[in-house]
Order: sequence, then C-alpha cells, then structure tokens
Amino acid sequence: MAKFVYTFGAGAAEGAAGMKALLGGKGAGLGEMSRLGLPVPPGFTITTEVCRYHYEHERSYPASLEVEVAAALAHMATLSGGKFGDENNPLLVSVRSGARVSMPGMMDTVLNLGMNDAIAATLSKSTDPRFAYDSYRRFVQMYGDVVLGLKPQTKDEHDPFEVILDRKKSERGAANDNELSAEDLRALAFEFKAEIENRLGVSFPDDPHEQLWGAIRAVFGSWENPRANTYRKMYNIPSEWGTAVTVQAMVFGNLGEDCATGVAFTRDPSTGERRFFGEYMRNAQGEDVVAGIRTPQPVSSSAASAGNSLQETMPKAYGELVELYQKLERHFRDMQDIEFTIQKGKLWMLQTRTGKRTAKAMVRIGVEMVAEGLITVDEAVLRMEPSKLDELLHPTLDPNAAKQVVAIGLPASPGAAVGKVVFHADDAEERAQKGERVVLVRVETSPEDIHGMTAAQGILTARGGMTSHAAVVARGMGKCCVAGCAALNVDYARRQFSINRDGREIIVKQGDVISLDGAKGEVILGAVPMTAPTLDSEYGTLMKWVDAARRLRVRTNADTPIDAVTARNFGAEGIGLCRTEHMFFAEDKILAVREMILAKDERERRRALEKILPMQRADFVGIFSAMQGLPVTIRLLDPPLHEFLPSEAGPMQEVARALGTTVEVVRARTQALHEANPMLGHRGCRLGITYPEIYETQVRAIVEAACEVKRSGKEVLPEIMIPLVGHERELTRLRALVEATARRVLEAQKLSINFTVGTMIELPRACLIADRLAESADFFSFGTNDLTQTTLGVSRDDASSFLSEYVRLGIYPVDPFVAIDREGLGQLIAMAVERGRSKKPDLKIGICGEHGGEPSSVEFCHQTGLDYVSCSPFRVPIARLAAAQAALRLK
Amino acid sequence: MAKFVYTFGAGAAEGAAGMKALLGGKGAGLGEMSRLGLPVPPGFTITTEVCRYHYEHERSYPASLEVEVAAALAHMATLSGGKFGDENNPLLVSVRSGARVSMPGMMDTVLNLGMNDAIAATLSKSTDPRFAYDSYRRFVQMYGDVVLGLKPQTKDEHDPFEVILDRKKSERGAANDNELSAEDLRALAFEFKAEIENRLGVSFPDDPHEQLWGAIRAVFGSWENPRANTYRKMYNIPSEWGTAVTVQAMVFGNLGEDCATGVAFTRDPSTGERRFFGEYMRNAQGEDVVAGIRTPQPVSSSAASAGNSLQETMPKAYGELVELYQKLERHFRDMQDIEFTIQKGKLWMLQTRTGKRTAKAMVRIGVEMVAEGLITVDEAVLRMEPSKLDELLHPTLDPNAAKQVVAIGLPASPGAAVGKVVFHADDAEERAQKGERVVLVRVETSPEDIHGMTAAQGILTARGGMTSHAAVVARGMGKCCVAGCAALNVDYARRQFSINRDGREIIVKQGDVISLDGAKGEVILGAVPMTAPTLDSEYGTLMKWVDAARRLRVRTNADTPIDAVTARNFGAEGIGLCRTEHMFFAEDKILAVREMILAKDERERRRALEKILPMQRADFVGIFSAMQGLPVTIRLLDPPLHEFLPSEAGPMQEVARALGTTVEVVRARTQALHEANPMLGHRGCRLGITYPEIYETQVRAIVEAACEVKRSGKEVLPEIMIPLVGHERELTRLRALVEATARRVLEAQKLSINFTVGTMIELPRACLIADRLAESADFFSFGTNDLTQTTLGVSRDDASSFLSEYVRLGIYPVDPFVAIDREGLGQLIAMAVERGRSKKPDLKIGICGEHGGEPSSVEFCHQTGLDYVSCSPFRVPIARLAAAQAALRLK
Repeated sequence: MAKFVYTFGAGAAEGAAGMKALLGGKGAGLGEMSRLGLPVPPGFTITTEVCRYHYEHERSYPASLEVEVAAALAHMATLSGGKFGDENNPLLVSVRSGARVSMPGMMDTVLNLGMNDAIAATLSKSTDPRFAYDSYRRFVQMYGDVVLGLKPQTKDEHDPFEVILDRKKSERGAANDNELSAEDLRALAFEFKAEIENRLGVSFPDDPHEQLWGAIRAVFGSWENPRANTYRKMYNIPSEWGTAVTVQAMVFGNLGEDCATGVAFTRDPSTGERRFFGEYMRNAQGEDVVAGIRTPQPVSSSAASAGNSLQETMPKAYGELVELYQKLERHFRDMQDIEFTIQKGKLWMLQTRTGKRTAKAMVRIGVEMVAEGLITVDEAVLRMEPSKLDELLHPTLDPNAAKQVVAIGLPASPGAAVGKVVFHADDAEERAQKGERVVLVRVETSPEDIHGMTAAQGILTARGGMTSHAAVVARGMGKCCVAGCAALNVDYARRQFSINRDGREIIVKQGDVISLDGAKGEVILGAVPMTAPTLDSEYGTLMKWVDAARRLRVRTNADTPIDAVTARNFGAEGIGLCRTEHMFFAEDKILAVREMILAKDERERRRALEKILPMQRADFVGIFSAMQGLPVTIRLLDPPLHEFLPSEAGPMQEVARALGTTVEVVRARTQALHEANPMLGHRGCRLGITYPEIYETQVRAIVEAACEVKRSGKEVLPEIMIPLVGHERELTRLRALVEATARRVLEAQKLSINFTVGTMIELPRACLIADRLAESADFFSFGTNDLTQTTLGVSRDDASSFLSEYVRLGIYPVDPFVAIDREGLGQLIAMAVERGRSKKPDLKIGICGEHGGEPSSVEFCHQTGLDYVSCSPFRVPIARLAAAQAALRLK
Repeated sequence: MAKFVYTFGAGAAEGAAGMKALLGGKGAGLGEMSRLGLPVPPGFTITTEVCRYHYEHERSYPASLEVEVAAALAHMATLSGGKFGDENNPLLVSVRSGARVSMPGMMDTVLNLGMNDAIAATLSKSTDPRFAYDSYRRFVQMYGDVVLGLKPQTKDEHDPFEVILDRKKSERGAANDNELSAEDLRALAFEFKAEIENRLGVSFPDDPHEQLWGAIRAVFGSWENPRANTYRKMYNIPSEWGTAVTVQAMVFGNLGEDCATGVAFTRDPSTGERRFFGEYMRNAQGEDVVAGIRTPQPVSSSAASAGNSLQETMPKAYGELVELYQKLERHFRDMQDIEFTIQKGKLWMLQTRTGKRTAKAMVRIGVEMVAEGLITVDEAVLRMEPSKLDELLHPTLDPNAAKQVVAIGLPASPGAAVGKVVFHADDAEERAQKGERVVLVRVETSPEDIHGMTAAQGILTARGGMTSHAAVVARGMGKCCVAGCAALNVDYARRQFSINRDGREIIVKQGDVISLDGAKGEVILGAVPMTAPTLDSEYGTLMKWVDAARRLRVRTNADTPIDAVTARNFGAEGIGLCRTEHMFFAEDKILAVREMILAKDERERRRALEKILPMQRADFVGIFSAMQGLPVTIRLLDPPLHEFLPSEAGPMQEVARALGTTVEVVRARTQALHEANPMLGHRGCRLGITYPEIYETQVRAIVEAACEVKRSGKEVLPEIMIPLVGHERELTRLRALVEATARRVLEAQKLSINFTVGTMIELPRACLIADRLAESADFFSFGTNDLTQTTLGVSRDDASSFLSEYVRLGIYPVDPFVAIDREGLGQLIAMAVERGRSKKPDLKIGICGEHGGEPSSVEFCHQTGLDYVSCSPFRVPIARLAAAQAALRLK
C-alpha cells in the first residue's frame, strides 16, 4: 500500500533530501534536517501523489489518508508536548504548500491553525493575552480569506477584514495595529467570524480538525489557481508535478524580545565570499520579514551593524546558529539558504535548501570549496550551471531589483537591455544617434533592420524562434534578444504594443521604457538596474579545469572578423560555421548581390559575380587573419535567393538602374523567385548545381584570400562546406567543381594551400546515406536547425503558433529548436555518425546548428562521438563547460 | 583488352539480342538474326563504349579500334564476295547510328559509302549505269551534308545540292529526278564535289577508308547534335548511354522490278490480331518508304490488295518472309517489327525488334499467346506495361496521327484532351456552356479554379509537380492534365502563352487549339484525333490472372461518392484515403469553413462547426453507402487553414458578413494565418491538438454517418486516420479524443460500430519512433508525398525550379515525387514497417501517397511487406497489375 504521509521531528524523519519530487522542496529539506538532529519543529508532509490523486478523482483523497494524518498528528503530540485540538494543552500548526521547485508566493498558506475561542483563552493564559488574540484574529482572517474565500470580488472593493480592522482602529483612535488591546483583538476575531457568516452563509469552523482538512484542501486547490497556472506556464512547470502539503508545529518569533525570526545564507549569494550572511527581526513572525513591515537587521556583527546584529543581541542563539549552518554546509557540501525562528531563546530551524546565487558566486564558491577540500575539481565543474555563465559575459539585470515581468518570450540571446521602445529600425538609429538607449520591438526582423539592431540595446520580437533572424543576428552581435514573444500584439500604425495579461490589457507605447532579460526571455516594464560583466581569477581557474576535462573541441559560428576575435577570446578553437551570405547583407555588397540574383542569364550573372568577388575575398582575408592557425569552415551560399531581394520601391529602383532595366522587370523577376516553402526550395547546394558560377566565384574568393593571408606569413586552414546535400551525386559534382576551381587559383598563384571539402548534414536523407556521402567528404557538420525542421516537419518560423502549446501540454518536453530532440533527431544523428565512420573511420564530425551552445545538446554530441561543437561567440564558454560536464558524467 | 567491334553475317555473330546497351538496338538485333541463320547482309558494330571514350578523350578513339575495324572489313569481304574500296570488286556499306533505345531520325546515317569515280564506273558496268550514278550522286550529296557539313546556313537559304539538281533538271527540261540520264547523274556527282570544294575549301575524299572514318566520326558526333540533345532531354535518356555505329554491306531494293523493300509486324500492332501485317515498295530503297515518295502496298494479299501485295507479286520471297517471321516470333516469343529488302529476288533481313503496340494490342497479344501455348500466364502478366493500361481507361491521342510536340511537362493525369486554350476558370465555364471544348492553361491552379477544371477537357500548368493541386484534382476527376510544364511562359494579361523552342518563340493565344497527352506529358499544337477507351474480354481475362497473382490489396484515394463508385468499378478494394478537406472546397461549404477558420475564439469556432457538421455527415453517408462492405479510411483535417481562405474581395466580404465583422478584420486574421513554410506549419494533427473542437466535429460527423448507413442495412467499416503525427503523445491524445467522441455518439444512437484509429506516417520522426506509435495505432498509412518532401527537404510546389535539372543531370534518376526514392525514403519506410510490426505484428500498413499507383513504387510496397496501396481511381487497374508483377518477380 502506498504511503501518503511522511513525519519528521526530534532527530528523525521518514523523508530525506532526495525526495523532493514526492515531498516538495520544503518537506524534503525539513526531513533531512531532522535526520541530522537539527532542532526542527515536528510535523508531517502529505505527498504530491495525493495532489495528483485529488485532481484525478474529483477532489477526493485516497482512503487511507485520514488514518495516516491522524497517526502523524499523534506523533506530533508525542514530540511537541502539545496536542492539536486539545483545549487545555493546544498545539497550533502551519499548513504550507511545497512543490518540487520553488513557486514563491503563488500558492496558499495558513498559519496559527488549530484555534477556537476556548483554545485562544487557554493560550492567553499560558502565553500572553495580546499575543494569543492577535494570533487568533490573524488566523480567522487568513482562514476566512484563503480557505473560505471571503475576499474582494472586484478591484474597487476593499478587503472586508481590513474594513473592520480600520473601523476598530478609528473607534480606538489607534494609528497602528499594535495600539489595539488584547480585548480589541479578541473582539475583532468575533467580528471577523460574524462577517464571514453574514457574507458567506457559513459558520466559521470551531473544530481544529475541520480547520485542518479545510486548509489542506485549500492548499491542494491553490495548485490550480490562476496565478499558479500562469506562473507554471511562464516557467514550463508541468501541472502533473503537483504540490505537497506540510503541516508543522508553529513556533513563534513574536512572543517577546527573546524571540526572533530570520533568513541566512552560508556564503554571500551575490559575490560568493565565504561569510555567514543573513537578516533577522526580533519579536516578529517570518511573514513580517517578507512583508517588509520593519527593516531587518544583519545576522552577523560588523562595523555597520551598530550592535543590532543577532551576534550581538542574542549571542547564545547566534552561536548555535553558526554551528548549525556549518554543519548543514558540510553535510550538503554546498551553500545553503536557511530559515530559522528563535522562540524564547530557543533556536528552531524551519527550512534549508541549496542557495540561489549569482554566476559570480557560483564560480567563486565552487573554486573555493575545492581549495577548502570540501569538494573535488570534478564536482566543482559538474556543479556549475553552464547557462549561468552568460551572466559573466553579458550585462545582466540586478537580481535583487524588483521587476514587473509582463511577458516571457524565448531567451534568444543572453544579456540584458534597458531602453525606450521603438518599432522601426530608422527610429532606432535616429534616437541612438541622439544618445538615447532604445529597444527595437518588431513582429519579426529582416535583413533590412540590421542598422536598427546595431543601434538598439536589445531586440524584442513577437514571432520567430531560437534560430530566427533576430535571434541569430543578435547572438552574433552579443546583444540581448527576446524572440517569439507570442503574447505581444504589435501595432506598427499606432507605434505601440499590447499584452493581454489575466484579462487586463497592458499597452506600451513608443518611448516607454522596458527592460529585457535575454537569458530568461523576460519582458519587464520600466527600467531595471543592470550589472556589468566581469571575469575574475576564479573564472580563469574554473575554465582551466574545464578545458582539461573535456574531449569535445569547441568552435564558433562567426561571419565577421570582429565576431571571430570575440570568440577566440572566449576560447573558440576555430570557426565551425562561417555563413558567406551574412556578408551579403552588408550595405556595400547587397546591390551587387541583387544584380547577381536578378540576372537574366549566366552572362549577366557572371558580370555581377565579378563585382562580388573582390568583396568576398576581402571578407575572407579578414576572417582568416583573425583565426590564423585555427580551422575555418566556410559554407557556400545557402539561403533561397529571394531572401536578398528588396521589397521596397527605393532599393528596387536602385537594382533596376544597376541592371539597366525597369522596376517592373525587377518586380517580375522577384515574383518569379517566390516559393511556397522556401525552406524546402531552391537553396543550398541546389543553387550550386543549377548556377555553378556562383559557387565557383565563392571558392575563388576563398582560395585567393587564403593565398593572400598565407603570403603574409599566417597559417590558414580553410574547410569548404557544401550545404543541404541530400544525394551523394550532389556532393561528388560540387566537390569536383571546388577542386577544379581551387586548382586553377593555386596554379595561377603558384602556392599550395591545404584545404578540405565537406558537407553539412541537414536533411534526413543525408543521414540515411551518410556512408555514401562519407566517400566524398572530408568532414560532416550537422546543421541541426534544418535537420530539426525536416525531421520533425516543423518550420521554425511558423512554429510559434503551436510549439509553445506543445511544450505546455508536455508533448515535447523542451522546444526541439532549443535542445536536440534526442529521441527522434538523435537517432538520425547517431545513424549518420556510425554510417559515415563505417566508411571513413577518421571522418571529422561536428555540429554547427544553434544547438551547439546548449548544454544538454552538447552532452548529446559528446555521447555520440562528435569531434566538435560550434556555437555563437558568447556561448563558447558555456559549450566548453557543458563539454567538460558531459565528459565527467560519462567518465 | 576491351573488344570494340562485333561482327555479324552468314549465320554467325559476335553480338546477340541481350547486348543492346553495348551494341544498340540495331546492332544487337542484327547479331541475333545472324545467329539464327537468317539472311543478314554482313557487317559489324562499333560499341557504345567507343562513343563514350570518344567524348571523354577529345574526340579520339581507343588505340586498337583501327585494327579491329580493318579486321571486320576483311571479314565482311570474305562473307560478301565484294571488297570495300576495291575498284574492281567493290563493296558499298551503310553507316548507321543505333542507341539502346530508338531515337528515330535524331542521328545521322550515310548510305552507299565506299564510292569514288573509279568504283562508280565499275558498278556502272556490273549493275546498271543509271543505278550506279544515281547512287554515286546520292552518296556525294549525303556525305557532303552529313559528314562535311554543307547545308543551308540560314532558314532562307536553299539547300546547295538541291539548287544544282534543280538547275540540272531545268537544263534538261526534266520534271522528275528519274528523267535524268546516267550521264546527267554522273555530271551531278562531279558538280556536287566541285561545290563542296568551292564552298568548304576541302576536297571530297576519294579514299573509301577516309570516307568510312569520316562517317563514323559524324555518326558519333550526331549523338550530341542539338536535335538529339533536345530529344534526350524530353525523354530522359542519359547522354552517357552513347550510340553504337553499325557498318553493313549495302543491299539494294532498287535494282529493278525484282527488287523491293518493306517493313512488317508479326501481328497487328494496333488491334493485336494474329495476322502478318506490313507494307513494301518495289524497286525502292528503305529511305523511299520512310520519305513517302510513293504509296506502299500491303505485304499480304486481301480483297483490298488488288493483286499488288508482295504475296501476289513475289510469292517466293513472300513465302520465305513468312517462314522467317514465324521463326522470329517463335524465337523471341513476342510480336516482332521487321525490315527487309529483296535484291534481285533474294530476301535480306535488315532489322528485327520487339514491335511497339497499343495497349489494346498488348493485352490481346499477351492473352492469345498464352492460349497458343507460346508463353505462360505469368509471362503474359509480366510482359504487360502497367502504365499503358491508361490507354484502355482514358481517351487517347491517335498514335498514328502526326503531331507537333512543342513542350513536355509532367504526365500528371492520363488521358488526352483537345480544345481551345483559355486562361481563366470563368472563361472555361462560359465557353463550355456554349458547347466549346476548352483546355484550361494556368501557371498553377487553386481551389478557386475547380469550376473551370470541371468545365475543361484538360488542364495544363506551368508550375507544380505530380502532386500539385492541378494534378491531384485532375486525377480525381479522371481528366487529362499536364503539369509543371516549365517551358510555358503564361501571360494572363495578353491571354497567351509562349514557348521558347530552339531559339524560336511559339505563341499560343486564347482560342487557339492545342492537344494534351496526359500519359506522356506532351503539349501539341493543333487538334490530334482521339481514340475512345474500350475494355474487351481479353482485358477481363488478364485482370483475373492479375488478381490471382497479387498479394497486395489495392484501394483508392477518393473524396466523393462518384470517385468511390468509379474506383470500385476499376476493382478498388476500399478507400485508403478520403480527404475531408477536399469536401470543404465545395461551393455550399466553403463559407462555413471560412467562418470556422476566422473565428476569433472557440465559441465562434464551435458555432461555425455546427453548420459544417450536417454537411460533413451527408458527405460521409454518400461515401459509406458507395463503399458498403469495404473499409474507408478517413483522414481528419490536414492542410494549413489559410488554404481555405479567400484572397479576393468578393468572398472576403461574404465571410465578413457571415461573421458580422468587417473586411479589414477578415483580412487581418487572414494575414495572421500566413506562414513562411506552410508545408511545415500549423497543420495536420497540430490543428487537432490546438483546436480539438475541429476534430471532435469531424469524428461526430463520421460516426453519425456510419450509424445512419448501418441502419439502412449496409455494412460500414470506418478507419479514422490522424495526419502528420511526429510524436506518440500527439497520437495518444487525439486517439483519446476520437474514442471519447465516438463513444458519446454511439451511446446516444444506441448502436455499435467497429471503427479503427490509425495514423499517417509522413514525417521522418514518425518512422524513427514507429514502435512507439504502433502502440496507439491500429494501422499505419504512409503519406509518401509529404514524407518525400521532408526526407529529401524538397517542396513539391517549388521543386520545378531545380528538380527537372536534377533528373536531367542524373542526380536523381527519376523524379522522387513520381517513383519512391528507394535508396533514401525506402530506408525510412522499411524501418517504420519493421519497428511498427515489432510492437504489433498484425499492424495493418498501407500507402496513400501518389506513389500508390506507380508501378515501381507498388513493387517496393510489395517487397516491404505492406498490406495495401491506395491510388486515384483511374490508377487502380495499373496498381493491380503492378502488384501482380511484383509478386511474380519475387516468387
């Protein structure tokens, strides 16, 4: 038979730290502390399985639950001395939610539960009348609100309890609650109960057991309240997880000046410094600290504490606390976030959990714990959260600042941005030139927006995925971008966007300030303070360990010399993907490119290509120079040609003029290039097959540039990559073209250059015939973006209309454009690796899709035996760390 | 060492019938006849390998060729008595091309080769002066044209030889060539040679060996002449095949009245009747028969032959011929097409090959040869050409009529059409109502053209593949369609199309008559006579054998009761694909469908769905009734919703009115549904996941219709199919929805219906996880159109821009949308079958893509262990035959 209730207290527990899924974070932590012998008020946890049962069985409970709860209450009585519901020797309890991950403030809590008139009277005698009746009226108020549901029905209505409280205060001429007498508070409790009966037609339950079951039902019920649902949706928490309910004996930090409550970290969560760091409040309950009624004082003494620290005011309790925190840190071998209460001088521990920390603290704590001998180097490396490294490389939003998150999009490019909203690239540029900071908001971006993206602090789009134009370009620039934020309704005409949030419409107009968190995908109203990036010596130490541990090489996707240098500084060991077409969008090149595309025959096309040749050569000279001594993989032209074409009148005229023809002809040719599904259209090597002169020109530019750089004394290692190959005959044909062209250049230049020719693997068919492809390829590079699109049949540009719903419903656990779909795509990749190597055991294999910088995908690449991953420059350190973790996990 | 020359003659040969690839059809046939002891003028064949060598080695020859040719000439001398180049005892030869497949008239031929002044004089004495000098001047003319290249340089220029000949005739006052004397002809030969020297600056070669090598070079050269290139491109003949060159002793049918030449078939190639059928001409050369100078006479006597038949005029030779043709038919066990010449009463065989025949003749000959004991039933079935059955089911163009093919598109839907060109659906309808026959010509068709397609005799499109809208709809209608004819430049504004052909622009205006051959994809200027379809008793006999031989079931793709009945009559054993959305385009439904799509929320959508429900139910009642007792697979809604939306103002207003909103709102919602790659977008089961109410309504309509039909006493076997599944959770979720909905209907109707739920397999990911899918699927149906698109990464709508080039270059040997790409796609299908059956051994598996009616794809389906194929109604007999052939081949 299943067990639904787990007890803890007095140095023992049925639960433990490893049982978070079953007991929630709170229940598991309390169990573990009890086992360690720490002073924990006794209690019990009802499991998350009961929550699932509750929802699947029309809000009923498993048959055995009632007996288990009764037994657990009896156990609490034994441990605490008090007895729940006993009028003479009462025990009050708290009833709290606790999910697998923290969902702060989203679910319900009831405190001081187990009181009625008689018990309040008993408490009044045994403790203090004011305390007893204040607790009583607070309990009635909280229970009336949370369990019975007496709360304002409209926005304009006042809280019914606050109305009565205010009336009482004005009757007594009291400014604050604490000016009310015990009798006033007692009267308030009665008035609250009467109000409940009047307004709801139910009487307040006097039976503590009835109270308890009401509170349990309310906590389980709050798992599906709209607030919690919205939160889960935003943070992708499955609703199946459910919440646990922890019932625990109350301890009071508000029974006098020998009482206190507080929270503390075993190390500084912001800097990682090894010092006990926390805050407390005397004569207060935990809720008071959270509510910010008074300013809390520091736990440890310092020059600034002015005698108010816990260390100074309650040295004995402080001493115990220090002993306990050290014990906890040694036990968990990690920095802890603890909650405690001191009741009449006696210290109680209420919570412990691994403390959240900044990236800086994460690195410093890990490195210092190795120095302290607390953990090994491998453990330190494994404990790092790779994606958090972003914080060290980009400016970030101050984690301690308050912020109003109004929408969550895809975390498309890390970093943070604060600025005034603009909707057009020209506006962005204009305002930026005046010194304003702007955030460019678009439905989606196109190459024509580049100047605006350059000018903006950050980019926010309503459509498009992790590999949309906005995302790719922003990552290249190392600039913050939140993409595919479907909640945004962008209205260009009115220059505003709106968000419908819980039925309320939030409108943001041009010029309004917003903040973006590119690492979390958060869109925030107003300006949030920012923190600048720093790389300290601990980071250097960590990355040395990382590089020693990993087997996978890490390259970068870079299209410009600047990106290449950035990536090299971040530790990139080569370029895994240099997209020749991104260069084409540059202002000085696009006209010639358009001439090339709109040429009516090969002769016109060759004429335009002659103009492009020296420009491409110059680009490659820059990149080869920046990456000297490291390999550079250059992909020949890939996107459908119409992507380069102008849609507006001005540029169209310009092209018409250059081609010596009319705008009508240009428009007609543009339309002729239109495709129903450009992703599956005339692109990639299909361009090279049908217009060989294009690839020929690109290869000429590459090899001529390589010669030039080699002459200047630098080592060049070009790798020429053919995109979108699906049939081995495409590869053999184009390889012959590449080799013949290169031979001609090298003969003319009287030089020799070692170059290789390989192919991208981005079609399912390519995976299936990888053995045949391997015969003509020096290397494979998985283009996992396109391979995901074709294998799953999902267009990344259109996926926003259903993919977020798919993730929400748990059909795909993670967006497959973010992390490699191992179950499906993974099979094809593994097959291609195995088949490719069956023909050519030393075949070099890498990945250059956007997955290359995503930790779980990097792990997959390691497992599958790839040689390298390639990612955008700012993700290089993340990929290095993820590669090291993968190697260590599989050691 | 390779052998390049194969001799034949006098009852022996080095070549044989099986060596067509090496010796060409002509060389192989002559070799086989020689071996059989038939009277064949001796000669030799230079292989196709020499042709390839020639092109790959700058027009040179293998070193040993000259010696081999000299030896072969010596061998000819031994056999024939005459000696090539011997002035006293000369031997004349023909030099002819001969490829693996016949390319009639595309390449060059030189006759009477081996003459000079001295040899002509010798011949003049040994035969007849007029014959000798006529042969001489013909040889000089032919050699001068074909080998030396003296021909008109512009269209306006006259043929230089004809100019001289005309001058000679007018000098002599002769009306015809045969009024010229031997001396005149001799003089002409000299004048021709002088003209060649004058115009080309080269002297005519008098050395017969030089002549021979010149002719060999010219024949090889003609393999790449523009005419041959165009022809190969049109008929997909690889240029690598090359041509062979056959050099053979001349025999003369024009040496007097005891001479003749003719062609004959061993059975009637048009009806298949068993009778010797052919034509001959007395005192003539083969070329004269082809040129149609005189009317030929029948070979066999009949009432109509009036004493002129060969049987009557040369009974001895005729008797020999009959003996030989019977020997040939018995030897080859098939109907033969033979060429013969009678020189001075002696019969010579010049060619034999399997005779081309109509579909009707194919079936009759096969069935009768079984009755005659010449071949077995299995051989008869295997010998049928499945795709030719189309001729029996559709009207066809008269194969004997002359026709000017101006362009070739994809043979998208078989049959033939003759009519006036129109460019708009409305025009088609209007003219058809007036009783005119029209052919609708469009860049591509859309659902808004349906009424025009219905009204037209046939459809011709410039874009789109075998599975484009035009192709699919036309096949459903059993109407002729040529699709994706890229050579067409359609100009709607001028209501005309143009074709650029060999530098010449052909313009076809509205109202001009064209003919289409849907089985060959030919576009023909003017009206070609048509033949009506017939199904005779031999067809019935054949199809009985076919059905007994096959294992694969054959179903049909049908969306309407009419299609279902047609298919059932053609032998369909169920519906494999009923597309619910094709019904949506019907005029009476489209408005409600548009309301449903443009609904702003679920409530509005449900309101529109309520209108659709009874209409869908009525559709299904019709189909279930038509297919009673047979399974009907219904696919739930699949295409992206915007496909149904109006693009024009009128329909937009209508929708706006129905929804009680403005055209602007409708336009905005339409734009919001736009997708970059709709093929990979929000469609298929993704619609069912995000808008469950749509699938719910469709399932209700299906099950309610099934109940209604069952109540009327008919057996219904519905199979509900979920499209575009990529993840097992999509299937489990939607299967639950289908089952819950069906249960509700059946409970309300108090009936039970046996229905199954399965999935289409049309994404690579679905193949990879087929084992997981099988757990929730009663059947799989491969949607090979979409599976081809995703696996190969090719959009069928956009493929025309490069796929025809790919096929031309031999990258893909066949358009993968026509025949299943076994090498790539085939692996995925086989994997899915194996994985699916590993979990569910009795899983029913079929295919419902357009490949289901294509013979080589049917063979693949048989090999892979599928249970059935499903194809458009008119392809059902073809699929049955192909399935039988596959079973027999693998027996």
